[in-house]
Amino acid sequence: MRRWEKNIRKVVPYVPGEQPKEVNIIKLNTNENPYPPSPQVMAAINELDAQLLRAYPDPKVEKLVSAIADYFNLRNEQVFVGVGSDDVLAMAFMTFFNSDKAILFPDITYSFYDVWADLFDIPYQKIPLNEAFEIIKEDYLIDNGGIIFPNPNAPTGIAMPLDEVEAIIKNNRDVIVIVDEAYIDFGAQTALSLIEKYDNLVVVQTFSKSRSMAGIRIGYALGNPLLIKYLNDIKYSYNSYTMNYPAIELGVRAIADEDYFRATIAKVMEVREWTKQELIKLGFVFGNSQANFIFAKHGECAAQDIYEALRKERIYVRYFAKARINNYLRITIGTRAEMEVLIERLGKIVR
Amino acid sequence: MRRWEKNIRKVVPYVPGEQPKEVNIIKLNTNENPYPPSPQVMAAINELDAQLLRAYPDPKVEKLVSAIADYFNLRNEQVFVGVGSDDVLAMAFMTFFNSDKAILFPDITYSFYDVWADLFDIPYQKIPLNEAFEIIKEDYLIDNGGIIFPNPNAPTGIAMPLDEVEAIIKNNRDVIVIVDEAYIDFGAQTALSLIEKYDNLVVVQTFSKSRSMAGIRIGYALGNPLLIKYLNDIKYSYNSYTMNYPAIELGVRAIADEDYFRATIAKVMEVREWTKQELIKLGFVFGNSQANFIFAKHGECAAQDIYEALRKERIYVRYFAKARINNYLRITIGTRAEMEVLIERLGKIVR
Repeated sequence: MRRWEKNIRKVVPYVPGEQPKEVNIIKLNTNENPYPPSPQVMAAINELDAQLLRAYPDPKVEKLVSAIADYFNLRNEQVFVGVGSDDVLAMAFMTFFNSDKAILFPDITYSFYDVWADLFDIPYQKIPLNEAFEIIKEDYLIDNGGIIFPNPNAPTGIAMPLDEVEAIIKNNRDVIVIVDEAYIDFGAQTALSLIEKYDNLVVVQTFSKSRSMAGIRIGYALGNPLLIKYLNDIKYSYNSYTMNYPAIELGVRAIADEDYFRATIAKVMEVREWTKQELIKLGFVFGNSQANFIFAKHGECAAQDIYEALRKERIYVRYFAKARINNYLRITIGTRAEMEVLIERLGKIVR
Repeated sequence: MRRWEKNIRKVVPYVPGEQPKEVNIIKLNTNENPYPPSPQVMAAINELDAQLLRAYPDPKVEKLVSAIADYFNLRNEQVFVGVGSDDVLAMAFMTFFNSDKAILFPDITYSFYDVWADLFDIPYQKIPLNEAFEIIKEDYLIDNGGIIFPNPNAPTGIAMPLDEVEAIIKNNRDVIVIVDEAYIDFGAQTALSLIEKYDNLVVVQTFSKSRSMAGIRIGYALGNPLLIKYLNDIKYSYNSYTMNYPAIELGVRAIADEDYFRATIAKVMEVREWTKQELIKLGFVFGNSQANFIFAKHGECAAQDIYEALRKERIYVRYFAKARINNYLRITIGTRAEMEVLIERLGKIVR
């Protein structure tokens, strides 16, 4: 042991989905959008001016903040941006979950929550989903230091109705409730309409999934101006310039193209519904996903065996070796052509 | 007071230098490089492929890590990259300064250090510079939980000889010593040669100054593989994908162009030395800066008055209203033409 080891903060990091370097694979393991970003982004990327790189970007990121605020009919003071929703959530954990009481989140959920809680020494309590993998709102009425849950939940894909989301927010007015809406655009109801009504609500969304911009790293939080101010104080205490020049420019262009956005999410949802029907025919069982993935188990074949068989076919899906979900696969919705190959190969594997 | 206020982490954030939106100003307040990035970066920015934005970037950032490792004749395991050196330093504070004992840094130094220490609840002790604004190595031999200092120091620009840097590292083997080399390329001696010898040394550098890439946000840490592993564990516990696709591609191209890099820093240093001579003629006093800025006071005129007079002339320099340095201006080295205008205006102001 080195003499300085005692001073090191030791953590068990989050493990992101594999990013294989091979080509000619079907990659359905990290919930990326199979379609490219808006043609406006494609045009803008070739207009970037390298001369501007020598200067620091705007620390307030006003251009992108304004674009997002305008899009949602909010004021700039209600919008915070970061390097993907992971950066926004990490800063939100630091900012809002500073209590001695445990924060609450589901036992089956985005597996970064307990990692952030451990990193920042935040006590937490995992609230079990029911047998159908649903969040039960009554379970969140206990004393706590804050609440976070995704809607739709990950990796289940199951969405909560807005009135149930509101019940959790309304009955927890003395803590901050973060609704993590990374997958909201694929069919669930956003809680955004509630931010004027509840000053304890923070809604977090991302450009990574529905806007096909995972590679540019943009996430954002929406909430009342005081909460956004506290979040910015933490950001300015961590890194003044998180958003680089290309991210700001391309983010603005992505949010401007509403038609392309609507068309793209409609295609993902259409392929998702087709995939659900085909998976049922093959004997898979799953909740009613409102996300760009399906979380499924098979009646007879073990998930890990299917996962490994698919890898041999150069098809990557996500498998979590964790309690309660170690017989499930999380399958991202790719293009129709990719899903047809998946279904055909699955047909042979589970036969 | 809102009911949830008690759960909020309250901080006093770092205040970055002003980023005025006006055009036709002379901006000498944030230590940006006056020259554009390498022509290779200029070419590469127009070859970026928007199709690739839909996928997550490589979380290991291997392409950029390898480029930096090759450049310094290191192994990939000795290199960590982040969103500017501020991101790298923030993560390094979290990772390495996890002791109950106070970390040490100079009283006059980069003003983000105490902000990070406060953010992460790290105790700290500020060690006064001597009257000539020099770091005295003997002052760093007291019991501590870690050490950080810039070399050259900011905002003084004064560099420490490598043997003095080594003395601090060598006599503090049971803690981590971070040498923050944001400005190293403008004339000081890097501690990089010591990372094989001392396993408690972390060297942090940036693309923002000498490589004219402030707008793309790239910083890096160099150290022994175990320290870099611990830093990566924290990064993966915070945000798996910090570096976006344009940053990775353009960073690789920037570091490939050694000739342009050498020519650019030579120009900055030449203009700095010219500026020093001119400032002396005007009655300014300053230490021997080895950075891309000069930290100067005038024999008769108050710094704040000069600062405000320059602003009226649309020339921005940096003024810190802080103890010991509130009669100094930090003047970034711009182009020769910009510095000629500065000197001419200063001549009128201090006359």
